[in-house]
Amino acid sequence: MISQDVYGFIAALLTTVAFLPQVLKTWRTKKADDVSLVMLVMFISGLFFWIIYAIQTNALPVLIANIITLIFNLTTLSLKLIYRNGNRFQETAL
Amino acid sequence: MISQDVYGFIAALLTTVAFLPQVLKTWRTKKADDVSLVMLVMFISGLFFWIIYAIQTNALPVLIANIITLIFNLTTLSLKLIYRNGNRFQETAL
Repeated sequence: MISQDVYGFIAALLTTVAFLPQVLKTWRTKKADDVSLVMLVMFISGLFFWIIYAIQTNALPVLIANIITLIFNLTTLSLKLIYRNGNRFQETAL
Repeated sequence: MISQDVYGFIAALLTTVAFLPQVLKTWRTKKADDVSLVMLVMFISGLFFWIIYAIQTNALPVLIANIITLIFNLTTLSLKLIYRNGNRFQETAL
């Protein structure tokens, strides 16, 4: 593996795995009000286009990285929407 | 421009510009407690490696996209750290 591939591999690993702590934090705290909904929707849309691009260009590393990133961000989005209603109910209840 | 380039261009645009709404939200609400600090630090570290990779491979679009993404995420991280202290002070004050 040549030097530039090593940098690319570390880069892809970090910018993919980075979204796991957000999933865990949202799961733990049961809230993601400060996480921008517009950001999540735009980012997830972009990941779908990366996946189409990766399939068309036979770029397996790009495909794998974007599928993992997509799973993490779809999870954060789902948790955000679930807990948003939960918090609203709680606010009303309290 | 061939079809796959169009998908790649849309993908890069969306996954770059996506981070602007987070900056604006954090600026407006003056808080980002729910945004994972570990995510931001890991993601920003990954962007640095993408920038090194882009320079080494002369990949100008990758370089530009990652510099813009870096600026947005460094701004969110800075705002998060600034407002975290602000909120703590406010909590104590109230």
